[in-house]
Amino acid sequence: MNAKNAKVGIIMGSKSDLPVMRGAADILKELGVEYELSVVSAHRTPQRMFDYAKTAAKRGLKVIIAGAGGAAHLPGMVASISHLPVIGVPIKSSNSVDGWDSILSILQMPNGIPVATVALNASLNAGLLAAQILATSNEVLEKKVIAYKEELKEKVEKSAKEIESANN
Amino acid sequence: MNAKNAKVGIIMGSKSDLPVMRGAADILKELGVEYELSVVSAHRTPQRMFDYAKTAAKRGLKVIIAGAGGAAHLPGMVASISHLPVIGVPIKSSNSVDGWDSILSILQMPNGIPVATVALNASLNAGLLAAQILATSNEVLEKKVIAYKEELKEKVEKSAKEIESANN
Amino acid sequence: MNAKNAKVGIIMGSKSDLPVMRGAADILKELGVEYELSVVSAHRTPQRMFDYAKTAAKRGLKVIIAGAGGAAHLPGMVASISHLPVIGVPIKSSNSVDGWDSILSILQMPNGIPVATVALNASLNAGLLAAQILATSNEVLEKKVIAYKEELKEKVEKSAKEIESANN
Amino acid sequence: MNAKNAKVGIIMGSKSDLPVMRGAADILKELGVEYELSVVSAHRTPQRMFDYAKTAAKRGLKVIIAGAGGAAHLPGMVASISHLPVIGVPIKSSNSVDGWDSILSILQMPNGIPVATVALNASLNAGLLAAQILATSNEVLEKKVIAYKEELKEKVEKSAKEIESANN
Amino acid sequence: MNAKNAKVGIIMGSKSDLPVMRGAADILKELGVEYELSVVSAHRTPQRMFDYAKTAAKRGLKVIIAGAGGAAHLPGMVASISHLPVIGVPIKSSNSVDGWDSILSILQMPNGIPVATVALNASLNAGLLAAQILATSNEVLEKKVIAYKEELKEKVEKSAKEIESANN
Amino acid sequence: MNAKNAKVGIIMGSKSDLPVMRGAADILKELGVEYELSVVSAHRTPQRMFDYAKTAAKRGLKVIIAGAGGAAHLPGMVASISHLPVIGVPIKSSNSVDGWDSILSILQMPNGIPVATVALNASLNAGLLAAQILATSNEVLEKKVIAYKEELKEKVEKSAKEIESANN
Amino acid sequence: MNAKNAKVGIIMGSKSDLPVMRGAADILKELGVEYELSVVSAHRTPQRMFDYAKTAAKRGLKVIIAGAGGAAHLPGMVASISHLPVIGVPIKSSNSVDGWDSILSILQMPNGIPVATVALNASLNAGLLAAQILATSNEVLEKKVIAYKEELKEKVEKSAKEIESANN
Amino acid sequence: MNAKNAKVGIIMGSKSDLPVMRGAADILKELGVEYELSVVSAHRTPQRMFDYAKTAAKRGLKVIIAGAGGAAHLPGMVASISHLPVIGVPIKSSNSVDGWDSILSILQMPNGIPVATVALNASLNAGLLAAQILATSNEVLEKKVIAYKEELKEKVEKSAKEIESANN
Repeated sequence: MNAKNAKVGIIMGSKSDLPVMRGAADILKELGVEYELSVVSAHRTPQRMFDYAKTAAKRGLKVIIAGAGGAAHLPGMVASISHLPVIGVPIKSSNSVDGWDSILSILQMPNGIPVATVALNASLNAGLLAAQILATSNEVLEKKVIAYKEELKEKVEKSAKEIESANN
Repeated sequence: MNAKNAKVGIIMGSKSDLPVMRGAADILKELGVEYELSVVSAHRTPQRMFDYAKTAAKRGLKVIIAGAGGAAHLPGMVASISHLPVIGVPIKSSNSVDGWDSILSILQMPNGIPVATVALNASLNAGLLAAQILATSNEVLEKKVIAYKEELKEKVEKSAKEIESANN
Repeated sequence: MNAKNAKVGIIMGSKSDLPVMRGAADILKELGVEYELSVVSAHRTPQRMFDYAKTAAKRGLKVIIAGAGGAAHLPGMVASISHLPVIGVPIKSSNSVDGWDSILSILQMPNGIPVATVALNASLNAGLLAAQILATSNEVLEKKVIAYKEELKEKVEKSAKEIESANN
Repeated sequence: MNAKNAKVGIIMGSKSDLPVMRGAADILKELGVEYELSVVSAHRTPQRMFDYAKTAAKRGLKVIIAGAGGAAHLPGMVASISHLPVIGVPIKSSNSVDGWDSILSILQMPNGIPVATVALNASLNAGLLAAQILATSNEVLEKKVIAYKEELKEKVEKSAKEIESANN
Repeated sequence: MNAKNAKVGIIMGSKSDLPVMRGAADILKELGVEYELSVVSAHRTPQRMFDYAKTAAKRGLKVIIAGAGGAAHLPGMVASISHLPVIGVPIKSSNSVDGWDSILSILQMPNGIPVATVALNASLNAGLLAAQILATSNEVLEKKVIAYKEELKEKVEKSAKEIESANN
Repeated sequence: MNAKNAKVGIIMGSKSDLPVMRGAADILKELGVEYELSVVSAHRTPQRMFDYAKTAAKRGLKVIIAGAGGAAHLPGMVASISHLPVIGVPIKSSNSVDGWDSILSILQMPNGIPVATVALNASLNAGLLAAQILATSNEVLEKKVIAYKEELKEKVEKSAKEIESANN
Repeated sequence: MNAKNAKVGIIMGSKSDLPVMRGAADILKELGVEYELSVVSAHRTPQRMFDYAKTAAKRGLKVIIAGAGGAAHLPGMVASISHLPVIGVPIKSSNSVDGWDSILSILQMPNGIPVATVALNASLNAGLLAAQILATSNEVLEKKVIAYKEELKEKVEKSAKEIESANN
Repeated sequence: MNAKNAKVGIIMGSKSDLPVMRGAADILKELGVEYELSVVSAHRTPQRMFDYAKTAAKRGLKVIIAGAGGAAHLPGMVASISHLPVIGVPIKSSNSVDGWDSILSILQMPNGIPVATVALNASLNAGLLAAQILATSNEVLEKKVIAYKEELKEKVEKSAKEIESANN
């Protein structure tokens, strides 16, 4: 199931979530964080989900990113089984009630079982948050995160200059 | 875990859900359907939830009623593990977002894993629905269900008469 | 009105709901459950709706599946007239307020008249739930339901393997 | 069931709706419009609801006011059976999802079956609207409606003067 | 401003609402009710709105249908100035917040100023409701309304037969 | 109707809104801005509302603050008649649908007729915004606004110190 | 950063907001109000946002218009740093939860820090409101605003005539 | 501002948030994680917020927990300035729109600036998540987290036994 040396496990409820969830993998690759990517359905493969969560820490994972849509139980169930920090990505799937179902199913966890929820479809942010978590004990990665934020700033400043010279 | 001869398993995520969920037990008792009642938390006791759902059919249960609030995963997870019909009761717990979280977490299940969802806090209806399901193969119970509906009608007709004579 | 030997009645408020509601028929056919399919509008043919619900049990039906959109009264009204278990499918029709109207009109039934509500447009799940209900007293069908869930699991495991070998 | 000479039928789904629905009766009495008041439950007494709506016009009613909470089917069903104008009052009952269920179940009727919906709990407005409808062919009542609106204006002007002299 | 002998005034906040609001005119024409159609903006032509509402009854109108989107004030303001029954049509315009703004701005009127609100974009129902109101004092029109509902029923029964013979 | 020299007109739809709307008057008094306070109902006193808005600029007002609940038309209608900046305060009145009706009725104005909407019940902010608007051409008032914000800062810093010394 | 003599600063969180926010610039140009236009991201360029807000008044700006989508913090943060009136434009960006996130993040500011919020995507109204604010101390501009509203009226009256002659 | 050796900074927008936010401090104390607690308002003390976030990493903090209500900008702004993982706690304050404003303002952050959002008022979960994050590089803490989850399980099992013996 696992990729060697992966620190972050990225899972999703269905193959159809891959276009959204790829964003988490891309940013981790960009920041040099090893990850594994798979499909684990809380509802269709509950035993597989159980095993994944149960063995996650032993296999070396430090953070789990779980994306799901509709009645999205994957992030919360993984968080209930593993003691690792779990990041939840609500996905706006077809027949979702405008994304509200995914958001509330992931966010509103009871006391004792937090899920670190990010914005609707925001897998990039899930990957970045995983990197920030790992960076709390990894100075090389911390510097990459700081550099990434610096680049964001520079891009905005560049587009600001373009707009200013075109419009003012 | 189980009561002898129970046909309906009533479970809830937390002891604090008992005042709401008792309604399911009461109507089943009234209709003479044997049930068992327990606390099974998807999030705090995932293994217990797994075992409960896995063994439910073998232990003789025919229907499971599961109530939960907030990010309510219990009904859906039990439905993913057991092949029995699962009735979900959304509970409006404190810190719930007006009950929307419970409703959507239980209702919006993906293809292949239905949960028969009833109204917010409507445990009486969950119990009655369980009885209706069992009555599809039990004529004695079917008659009791019909009689129960007849009584409802009579109560409304009685209060209608009172209001009519007082107001018209 | 009825098909011979039908155990499940599938009705919908309008011909335009057929593309959604066909999903219920398809899964029942796959599982070998006999059904009948028709259009019964609570609002445009109230007498027909009344007659359908009144005679449903006598005609041999065991479960009714009713789909409707907007102010969706069909499932609840059928449940008020028949003592059979009624499964409601909220349909996101045009001019619906994002599906909320269908969901709440079907789900929020008063004490005494439950409707087993499934997810927005989830007619497949309605059909499967009907089969699960019938399977409580039919071992052959029970085995088919168990096999169906097993297939779901295998499909996910297969796509998991594909994604893992492509990405890890 | 009916009061002699009643022009407006006021019905509600449950005796517990009376405190809200009394407002419709009070304004009609104030304007000298004869009404009848009763309990008719779409869900618990479907046959009674059917009969009520079917005979309403023959019994001399010109307008029907129907109040209900939750999955509120009474106004829409009465409108589907009778050709009289039906005014719907959404009631915010306990276990309602903040009143949204009542509003949407009453308002979102399909083409061909309108319900004249008023605000949440606004039975006074339902009564007044019934009077406005009758006043389209009754000049005496029309003058009373005009006078009623004039009084509303005067009350506001009076409180405006009080607030102005106290604060400016 | 007015068409001769019009009994129903149909107004809308903007020319862009015409495709939706035409439905009210069409059903009134079908039922033989004379109407007038115009654009009256509460926000851009407040004086014109004022004059329209003020003179509506004198000019012979018996019912006003007002459609508007967004912060839809036209129906409520006309109802505040005229004593005629006002039917409000919430329109889902571009940049509307999913139609919720139009619905709530029209529906939630204070005590004393009802607006008979119909479903989102439901101008056909607004026209039909106007006819039902006029039919309370017009037996010829009453018969046409009854016949219209009969036709609706027949259409559903016809499509029911088609679906039944194709599927059962 | 007006107080001498008033620069800001504070109006509300009903006397019952005074406890909320007093906050606007209080902050204006604190900042030394002259205001007038009154009740003007768009729905019960449309002519008075018309006159108020029509004469506002001539009477020396520079800004209008209008508070209303439910289908809150007062701010938008005043903005449609006067060319002054209008600040709208959504009020969460009883029978409001959780304040959503007031917010959307005030906020979602069409192109050409803006209303400067503040938070639910936020009359203090409405008063402060009026002062900020007047301060764009009044240096004395500008300094008072700056000082007011400085005080807010100091209060937070003081409570921060208390909490820090008690908890860290 | 600034354009010479600009009285209104128009900023947005991202270059992708320009198509929406251009509406504010267009109306200001039409009314002859000098403005500057730029990109300032609260989240990606917090220091730049800080500097922009801190120096806004000194650089001669009288009003700031800030548009943003999702968790839209730009308007509120600029209002917390500058004492100028800030107008917020909620933008319905992709992955927004139907615009609700932008609206609530901008509107629901705490006591002491108002943001003058306009409708979803309503940048034209933001520009017009800025002009109305400046017009409180500029008679030439005041006349232009009055003329602009007059034109709106005439356009509606013209389309009213067209519709009336085509339909009545 | 800081407590010695604090690894987690807990901040909130207002002193009135302390009863909710204390839950984060309590769980951290229970798990032996050093924290500091303070009030930092994004809106009333923007410079203080800026300085807090800017210096957080240098002062030794590894994780920041920020709670706020209404238009809750504190978590997102701190996340925009610091590269540390930020956990956001939406608080249901008075005049909040049912908590939706807090949830959406914190959750819906743009790409590049994640906030790890927990449930409404769920400060305990925020504290626990902070501990889970620190435990990714601290085995002693990891064991405490595992033990904490074990205790949760035992509590549920105990209450399950009580309910079973009382009811079955």
